[in-house]
Amino acid sequence: MSEADLHPLPAEEPLDEDLEELDEENRLKSSFIDKVRDALDAGDTGRVYDLVEPLHPADVADLFELLDGDERGLLASAITDLMTGDVIAELNDYVRDSMVEALPAATVAEIAEQLDTDDAVQLIEDLDTEDQQAILAEMEPEDRAAIESALSYPEETAGRLMQRELVAVPETMTVGDLIDYLREQDEMPTEFWEVFVVDPRHYPVGTCQLSWILRTPRHIALTDVMKRDQTLIPVTMDQEEVALRFQKYGLISAAVVDESGRLVGQLTVDDIVHIIQEEAGEDALLMSGAGDGDINEPIRDAYSARVRWLVANLLTASVSATIISLFGGTIEQLVVLAALAPVVASIGGNAGTQTMAVSVRALAMNQLTRSNTRRIIWREMRVALANGATIAALAGLAVAGIFSFSLGGLLAVQLGLVIAAAMLINIITAGLAGVAVPVALDRMDQDPAVASSVFVTMITDSMGFLVFLGLAVVSGLVG
Amino acid sequence: MSEADLHPLPAEEPLDEDLEELDEENRLKSSFIDKVRDALDAGDTGRVYDLVEPLHPADVADLFELLDGDERGLLASAITDLMTGDVIAELNDYVRDSMVEALPAATVAEIAEQLDTDDAVQLIEDLDTEDQQAILAEMEPEDRAAIESALSYPEETAGRLMQRELVAVPETMTVGDLIDYLREQDEMPTEFWEVFVVDPRHYPVGTCQLSWILRTPRHIALTDVMKRDQTLIPVTMDQEEVALRFQKYGLISAAVVDESGRLVGQLTVDDIVHIIQEEAGEDALLMSGAGDGDINEPIRDAYSARVRWLVANLLTASVSATIISLFGGTIEQLVVLAALAPVVASIGGNAGTQTMAVSVRALAMNQLTRSNTRRIIWREMRVALANGATIAALAGLAVAGIFSFSLGGLLAVQLGLVIAAAMLINIITAGLAGVAVPVALDRMDQDPAVASSVFVTMITDSMGFLVFLGLAVVSGLVG
Repeated sequence: MSEADLHPLPAEEPLDEDLEELDEENRLKSSFIDKVRDALDAGDTGRVYDLVEPLHPADVADLFELLDGDERGLLASAITDLMTGDVIAELNDYVRDSMVEALPAATVAEIAEQLDTDDAVQLIEDLDTEDQQAILAEMEPEDRAAIESALSYPEETAGRLMQRELVAVPETMTVGDLIDYLREQDEMPTEFWEVFVVDPRHYPVGTCQLSWILRTPRHIALTDVMKRDQTLIPVTMDQEEVALRFQKYGLISAAVVDESGRLVGQLTVDDIVHIIQEEAGEDALLMSGAGDGDINEPIRDAYSARVRWLVANLLTASVSATIISLFGGTIEQLVVLAALAPVVASIGGNAGTQTMAVSVRALAMNQLTRSNTRRIIWREMRVALANGATIAALAGLAVAGIFSFSLGGLLAVQLGLVIAAAMLINIITAGLAGVAVPVALDRMDQDPAVASSVFVTMITDSMGFLVFLGLAVVSGLVG
Repeated sequence: MSEADLHPLPAEEPLDEDLEELDEENRLKSSFIDKVRDALDAGDTGRVYDLVEPLHPADVADLFELLDGDERGLLASAITDLMTGDVIAELNDYVRDSMVEALPAATVAEIAEQLDTDDAVQLIEDLDTEDQQAILAEMEPEDRAAIESALSYPEETAGRLMQRELVAVPETMTVGDLIDYLREQDEMPTEFWEVFVVDPRHYPVGTCQLSWILRTPRHIALTDVMKRDQTLIPVTMDQEEVALRFQKYGLISAAVVDESGRLVGQLTVDDIVHIIQEEAGEDALLMSGAGDGDINEPIRDAYSARVRWLVANLLTASVSATIISLFGGTIEQLVVLAALAPVVASIGGNAGTQTMAVSVRALAMNQLTRSNTRRIIWREMRVALANGATIAALAGLAVAGIFSFSLGGLLAVQLGLVIAAAMLINIITAGLAGVAVPVALDRMDQDPAVASSVFVTMITDSMGFLVFLGLAVVSGLVG
């Protein structure tokens, strides 16, 4: 959307390793943040500006995130003209939204017009419709239309993520024609890595990496340089699937096509990298029930996401509590059972979580499919058997040894055998549940990372208590 | 290392959406795998070849991973000449190693010579020194030297990952000179996205995106087009740090420099994407103690990684068991305490895991640093207070209600108050431990994802039992 102005290129902010603002891991130093803080407290906006001005946009974004909520507004007003599109694009979602809400519509529109469509959409997509309209009203009709069209696709799809700015040229061009065309054009994407070749109806017929063009004599036809087969991304494709496709085929950019197959936009790897990172990292958060798990998320949202999970776990824990209370008489006869039963449940839970984490990851990576489910279950059963046997032996020996003094030899050995058998059974159950639950959820088109852990823990907890206390009764350890 | 031969480009394998081998999520269909399997069983290598030949290299790699161990060898011998570098580079580490071990050294050397250094290194880095030597002995001296030099850097550093093939040109060139140079060169990287400009001592002075070159008239000096400030990656930088740098600055490629600052290689985003994916996804596996968590990992390795974790948890669980047994007399008086105590411990464990997952992620993303630790702890305390109050109220009311029949009103209310107080205290403890443990481990230069969960669970378990049973005694609920 910006008028390209690349001859000659302006020097960008330094990325120098030795910048005194950054520590050895490339994070903003605590001492630097304190300086900014002091200047903000003193109301010395000139000093704030001088401190922030040499930073790379990505570091300015980090600075906003590291400051407290109320300091962010002060900073934004102190450095208004440093709040470029690059800074906005790098900001954390929550931090960006609170910032955008604090700025007047005209300023937001001004920033949005400098950005590629995808970044501009990100800037305003989470606002109320009313605020969005106010901002869009301030924009050029052409930019407004592009953003409105992007907003018409569902969130987290290729249509929402794509940038409309791309280089598409007809099949009839030679390499020389293309170079001349590129030199003459003013309106260009700020960055592009491939050129898309289209037919007269704007259907993609091939792509050219820029290096192929640079290495080929001017008279060669583009159709002789381009690669005909390419990954076409439908506008409706989910971003997780897009990320897998980029990764699998090592893509730098890809054409996005609409329902009829016409070229409507492109996706570039620098935008996809954030998604790959997010999608890969979110499983740990989802499995623990931490929701978005973003430290910038408002407390109310964090509470609402996490408390739901805790309530669900309260309900499943009450299943175990019910099982234990059924064995109340047994426990009264041998109170040490109450101390040992939670150990059986807890180790089962750990073993189940291990298998579950492996399965959820393999499902997310498309490594666990219908073709190898049986083999993976069998593999996990063998791991569980080995783990179960080891832990059963350790726990059995330890219990028999420790309780030989208080309970006497025979009873202690019997107790050791009971806990060993219970451990083995529960760890094997955990292994089975750890694969079966995520796979079943996946086949029902549910995200296995979200719900698996409630079910797996419920199974391992209740099996742990039931098997251990049940065996204590059945084995005649207690009457 | 390959002789580049890009005029005109050969058509690559199709990436078409409608390939009958792939399902709607772009995974190989189960029915296709079965066809390959049947042909392998029947020893019909011609049919195997015909089935596999139309696949994209990334899908051939997937096929190997989806087959059983013994079928992989059969497949490899049936399609020897389809085993290109692209297939090898896409293979899972474990699958690739077992495959390479099964091939003669000369064949491996032949494959390695087609690859860029980084892929060739990946191919042989996990072999025994003896096998490596046998393969290197079969290679051209120049390629061998490049690989040996890469192997001299530690695993998971930029030096090991980088490719030595890059385009570096002197500052004196014009855009026209560069285009002529590129057209004349035969030895070129298979893919490149930026050109590095170096001084006579081979120190990097700037980079040019290829699109800038294509858009600039021939007579303009390169030094007027290039960007002077660039991210330089030291050879010794850890791959996780490299990945963060690529992500933060949206890099497509970056120059790698040796200790003296000379340009020695480049890293490109398609290699880094795998690392970003791995590093972001491994936290869920590390937190659960599942080690590498790769479904292709040999069973022995999976057992050894996981059983260590289970033993550690057995030891920490024995702390809780000891605490419970100290309250043996209390439990004998009111056996329902044995049923309720594990609920308090379990919810505390869940709350602790949530906070821990959030903190580990924020640490990995450089979002939680010394500058905002205090703010984040305070934030998590407030979330914990809200969660704790909610769960305490629910658990207290439920317990008071349920036990009013069996224990009588007064005792039931007292029990409800005890469990509510214990829940609140344990959830707040969990919130504190969930931030403090990962942050402390991080400051001691330990990976917070690896060890946090043992400590956090130990704290929430033992606090849960101690506080609940302790309050039962102190409150006079039992004598």
